[in-house]
Amino acid sequence: MTNITTENCAALLDILREKNPLVHCITNYVTANTVANGLLAAGASPVMADSPLDAEDITAKASAVLFNMGTLSKDRLRAMLISAQKAADMAKPIVLDPVGAGSTDNRLRSTMQLLRQFRFAAVRGNASEISALLSTSPITMKAEKGVDSAETTLEDKISLAKKAAKRYSCTVMVTGSTDVIANGGRVALVSNGVPMMSKITGTGCLASGLVAALCGCTEDSFEAAVTAAALIGTVGEIASETAKGTGSLYVGMLDTLTNITPDIFTQYAKIENYTGE
Amino acid sequence: MTNITTENCAALLDILREKNPLVHCITNYVTANTVANGLLAAGASPVMADSPLDAEDITAKASAVLFNMGTLSKDRLRAMLISAQKAADMAKPIVLDPVGAGSTDNRLRSTMQLLRQFRFAAVRGNASEISALLSTSPITMKAEKGVDSAETTLEDKISLAKKAAKRYSCTVMVTGSTDVIANGGRVALVSNGVPMMSKITGTGCLASGLVAALCGCTEDSFEAAVTAAALIGTVGEIASETAKGTGSLYVGMLDTLTNITPDIFTQYAKIENYTGE
Amino acid sequence: MTNITTENCAALLDILREKNPLVHCITNYVTANTVANGLLAAGASPVMADSPLDAEDITAKASAVLFNMGTLSKDRLRAMLISAQKAADMAKPIVLDPVGAGSTDNRLRSTMQLLRQFRFAAVRGNASEISALLSTSPITMKAEKGVDSAETTLEDKISLAKKAAKRYSCTVMVTGSTDVIANGGRVALVSNGVPMMSKITGTGCLASGLVAALCGCTEDSFEAAVTAAALIGTVGEIASETAKGTGSLYVGMLDTLTNITPDIFTQYAKIENYTGE
Repeated sequence: MTNITTENCAALLDILREKNPLVHCITNYVTANTVANGLLAAGASPVMADSPLDAEDITAKASAVLFNMGTLSKDRLRAMLISAQKAADMAKPIVLDPVGAGSTDNRLRSTMQLLRQFRFAAVRGNASEISALLSTSPITMKAEKGVDSAETTLEDKISLAKKAAKRYSCTVMVTGSTDVIANGGRVALVSNGVPMMSKITGTGCLASGLVAALCGCTEDSFEAAVTAAALIGTVGEIASETAKGTGSLYVGMLDTLTNITPDIFTQYAKIENYTGE
Repeated sequence: MTNITTENCAALLDILREKNPLVHCITNYVTANTVANGLLAAGASPVMADSPLDAEDITAKASAVLFNMGTLSKDRLRAMLISAQKAADMAKPIVLDPVGAGSTDNRLRSTMQLLRQFRFAAVRGNASEISALLSTSPITMKAEKGVDSAETTLEDKISLAKKAAKRYSCTVMVTGSTDVIANGGRVALVSNGVPMMSKITGTGCLASGLVAALCGCTEDSFEAAVTAAALIGTVGEIASETAKGTGSLYVGMLDTLTNITPDIFTQYAKIENYTGE
Repeated sequence: MTNITTENCAALLDILREKNPLVHCITNYVTANTVANGLLAAGASPVMADSPLDAEDITAKASAVLFNMGTLSKDRLRAMLISAQKAADMAKPIVLDPVGAGSTDNRLRSTMQLLRQFRFAAVRGNASEISALLSTSPITMKAEKGVDSAETTLEDKISLAKKAAKRYSCTVMVTGSTDVIANGGRVALVSNGVPMMSKITGTGCLASGLVAALCGCTEDSFEAAVTAAALIGTVGEIASETAKGTGSLYVGMLDTLTNITPDIFTQYAKIENYTGE
């Protein structure tokens, strides 16, 4: 149970570009373009294939798999089940983004089906999404705001991440102004990023995509998740230095992802091993 | 039957940011990203959920609902029917964007089914789309250019908007170089915007999304539509001052939406109460 | 069998803007927004309609049709079959982009079904996609990287393009650092573009869209394909002069497409008639 270091995370960026991992993304149509462009800019090779008929062939060739529950359809869920089985057979990492799991019974039920049947390398969501994965009762008309997450205290998020990581035996990232990443006894906090990032659709989806891409580069999903959190936060910070609004912030994030070096990453990354409690 | 004032419209922008209304969007995949980013930048909280299985849960939490008929599928129509019933039960406003209603029998039939079964707060389209909703015969191979609208005279558009508003007992916006908004005896003209906006896919879809977001902030759907028309037109004008083409115009529009204040809106908005004839 | 000239290609740009051809795109949801925005900026009028119920009506009005096999679904394939029949009946050009044909059995089988049943004006893909269309055995777990193409030699690509053009009696474009276009005895090479373009999702899809738009402006699909290759490459080169990464490269490409003149095109275009062997 080693601590995470910024140097190791930074080194992963070079590995990402060198390996150029194929990431099989089964994801929503709202942010598919953003995830694809973000992964390409970062150095990965995304394939967005959500047909049940394509799922097995693509997963067989991929280094990692991403499931995103936004705009879920029956066919896309079927593709996920086929892909997950193939990934399990071939011991490939799968990353889950339970978009809106806290907002509809259908999404929660589908997400729980995946979590019960398969082992994930990592799960990334906001506090209300991860909470939903730990609740025992169905969602019934909560006041909750769909995919937007109510901000909770840092302690709540740490506790949430630890519980979910234990329950699902995987890395769990709870994102927010500070991101909390937990796996086994390890907990890390990443406090990069700027508030305006939450006003761009798909930054969360891209964060999950980066976790998947990095899981395709290291066996340590905890390190992959910490690196992804610090990477997207850093990229957002750098882009915000010249951004005039959400349009140029997004463009600047892709530009920064294209060019970021391990050195720049190291200068910006705010990664902390949490040893509290 | 009060006249519209620019001041009231400007004030709605503050209400939008304060209320941050959840807008349930059942929309096409081509411009879903644009609509989501535009609504986020403006201060709303979009949820793009088009599964019949998600429709009821999301509509129950939403402040307003948007139906967009682009890339219509059977499942998406089913989701609209479920969502519309829930919205009707809970008295939530629904905004309809009849994309391409004039170009295929399927889209026209589906759109008419929605209009017959449910009451809408507002309908926004170009002249050929709104015309289609008033015709009595099926579309049969018109020379019409799909989703692009032939420019008609201002008088034609005023007459069209009034007729459609009467027929469907709702606010109707007919967009073009001058936008015409009608509801009951009220008619307003908005002449903001620049021609290049029509060369960005999704500006119309986003205009409809803004109508929905603003309908989530006021009971007066006429005021919501006039404000949305002036807002997107203003944002286009400001962005065009520095844009070099359609790419930077889109980025600039999101940047401007992020930052626009009621004061700036008031300086640019060209809103006119139409009292003619 | 006339040689291609840069002047004739440049002249096509003016025809494109004048004619503003309606292009019926049945395409994947990842890059649909990019293709629509690119076609609008270039001067065409895209309609993205992928429902089997819309297919016949839209194709009947279109000047050209585009089929893109990315994120293929059963419904989208059904729409393609209906649209292709209508296009065949009305003698309208269809352009095929066999995205990922080399990566799954499903996509290859579906693509081959289309190629067997219908005559295409042009097919555009990377070397591995076009190779797949010539192979006799099903794809079985090649090491291939999904939609990314392994770079092959220029001679290989020329041979590939010629064989595929002969087999399917149409224009074939094999894209790469040099694009090869073949039809009958004619072969042209286009060496515009910058490597970073391959890091933006949808540049290939847009290239195919431009081939379709230009096929809507000339009966010579070979000239249309050569022009599209030089156009998107030129636009990428010009945009790369000021781009800071993939985000601003994409924005700059749309800006350049909005403004490019036949004169600028002529200055940049690197088009060569290949007479070797």
